[in-house]
Amino acid sequence: MKNKDHLKLSDVGEFGFIARLARIFNQHLPKDVTGIGDDCAVLPWKGSQKLLVTTDLLLDGVHFLKEKISPRDLGYKALAVNLSDIAAMGGRPLWAFLSIALPVETELSWSKQFLSGWKSLSRKTQVGLLGGDTTRTTRAMVINVAILGEAQQIYIKYRSAARPGDLVAVTGQLGSSEGGLRLLLNKESKESSGRDEEFLLRHHFRPQPHLKEGYFLAHQPEVGAMMDISDGLDSDLRRIMESSACGAEVYLEKLPVSPALQRCSQKYGWSLEEVAAAGGEDYCLLITIGSEGYPDLDRRYRQKFRRRLHLVGRITGKKGKLVYLKDGRRVILQKSGFDHFKS
Amino acid sequence: MKNKDHLKLSDVGEFGFIARLARIFNQHLPKDVTGIGDDCAVLPWKGSQKLLVTTDLLLDGVHFLKEKISPRDLGYKALAVNLSDIAAMGGRPLWAFLSIALPVETELSWSKQFLSGWKSLSRKTQVGLLGGDTTRTTRAMVINVAILGEAQQIYIKYRSAARPGDLVAVTGQLGSSEGGLRLLLNKESKESSGRDEEFLLRHHFRPQPHLKEGYFLAHQPEVGAMMDISDGLDSDLRRIMESSACGAEVYLEKLPVSPALQRCSQKYGWSLEEVAAAGGEDYCLLITIGSEGYPDLDRRYRQKFRRRLHLVGRITGKKGKLVYLKDGRRVILQKSGFDHFKS
Repeated sequence: MKNKDHLKLSDVGEFGFIARLARIFNQHLPKDVTGIGDDCAVLPWKGSQKLLVTTDLLLDGVHFLKEKISPRDLGYKALAVNLSDIAAMGGRPLWAFLSIALPVETELSWSKQFLSGWKSLSRKTQVGLLGGDTTRTTRAMVINVAILGEAQQIYIKYRSAARPGDLVAVTGQLGSSEGGLRLLLNKESKESSGRDEEFLLRHHFRPQPHLKEGYFLAHQPEVGAMMDISDGLDSDLRRIMESSACGAEVYLEKLPVSPALQRCSQKYGWSLEEVAAAGGEDYCLLITIGSEGYPDLDRRYRQKFRRRLHLVGRITGKKGKLVYLKDGRRVILQKSGFDHFKS
Repeated sequence: MKNKDHLKLSDVGEFGFIARLARIFNQHLPKDVTGIGDDCAVLPWKGSQKLLVTTDLLLDGVHFLKEKISPRDLGYKALAVNLSDIAAMGGRPLWAFLSIALPVETELSWSKQFLSGWKSLSRKTQVGLLGGDTTRTTRAMVINVAILGEAQQIYIKYRSAARPGDLVAVTGQLGSSEGGLRLLLNKESKESSGRDEEFLLRHHFRPQPHLKEGYFLAHQPEVGAMMDISDGLDSDLRRIMESSACGAEVYLEKLPVSPALQRCSQKYGWSLEEVAAAGGEDYCLLITIGSEGYPDLDRRYRQKFRRRLHLVGRITGKKGKLVYLKDGRRVILQKSGFDHFKS
């Protein structure tokens, strides 16, 4: 065992580090404030309206590869992944702040395209850019986005609201973004790029924040916990388990996957279930639902969105235990999500 | 002349880039919102109370040198420089968000000390940490801090309120932080470090955000424009000139400097005036004052803070012209501030 003073961040991992931060800083918060530990912080605002705040740091080489993503897609995505955190609380996004560090040799045309990608989404979602910071960097490009949003206090959904017996559902297909990432990192894909590959890459570069879905689900009493899937179903479901002090089981055969991902998994020899369960950046929503309320909720959801809610598992009372089942039999999943301090 | 498409960020500079951002994004803002271009964004909040938001990106190798600053000082300073932006609007800081990218080999003890430095200031200023983001980096350490604060609408001071004839004053000594930085980058200082050197280094590592001063000055009707000095008097006064469409003259012999900086400038052959006028990171406040109101304001300020306001110049009607005078004679200052896109 290591001497505690020489422990490194990679020893405790990202979640360990955040848990430490939360222990230190969540101690003396006022009752009407939610701090570290959910998709957004929640603050008092106008009467029953609460202010939501979220911030995300994106680094070249860790969260994106500058040489592999167009400036337009990067501008779009930097905003999209933050909007997804607002969606996860059932909120409406209002204002954005963009901090960006660019190498001095960056061409103005690059930054114009970045801003045009950003604007294509900020216009659609009516999110104004109110400030930020710009600086040069001699090394990797850095982007930090902060978003303010609002939500009615009684409709905000937290990670801590899952209960044993609840069903677990997702609002979109899983693994397509991870498939796109694998193609990006695989040289083979260049030679054999077709419609399926394009589909996966589009999911990776242009994730759709589920703002309307989140807003709708927040208003449904059947929904318990809600969060967005950014690090992968496996990793993010564990966070709900931790916040709600429960366990979960996931039915691998029920994970919704695109035909394009199915075909590419066969073509490139990927484990489809691993890609779907552990791949990151889906940016759809993960919710828990009181089991009796599911049929009616699903009906209303279909009516509204012309798509269904995908049931993928169940919350259990086995605190901290995440079990994968395939056709009723327990299986071990190879990979277990993404941790920013473990490469 | 370069083809416009091949212009680089270093060609337009940081302020050119921010001006472009402001042109794009400030177009359709509601009347009760202040966006890009001041120390903080200003948003509607509780009745006559406004919400202030500021964010700053700090990179190892650009804004600090990880090997030259202790984790404790870095944690303190990352918060301090953001609080200074709240001070500049006359606000009260409320909540902070910290995004940090650390190399995986970072020891936990490092991050503990960083947080302890942060906490030493956050406790004193009662600023809670509500969230952020943590990630690994394979390259330079990155820190982004966002702060929310509040201020009474009628007392917020903007950069655009300077008028020809106003006096220009600062709330603290200039150049000590720049002196500290020069010592850090100079090998010679190690051999000859004494009390003066310690004084300058402390100013560089532990800037004092002038929150109380800013709050007091915001409530004084004589004060016109206010901002904090982060990039240097020269650079920051130009921003007031730009926002207020005016010019200014600065009296070099009146710049307040510490005896330690005077002695070190002699010892190391620095131009004292250049260090004071163009050195960055003073984090005191720069204000303009209706000229007739100055004596009374200075009296009240002395009463409250047991220090005086340092008069350093005057606002003129010569739009865009910043003139340096020394004992009444015009001089040319060698260096003209810090631009994050020009190294």
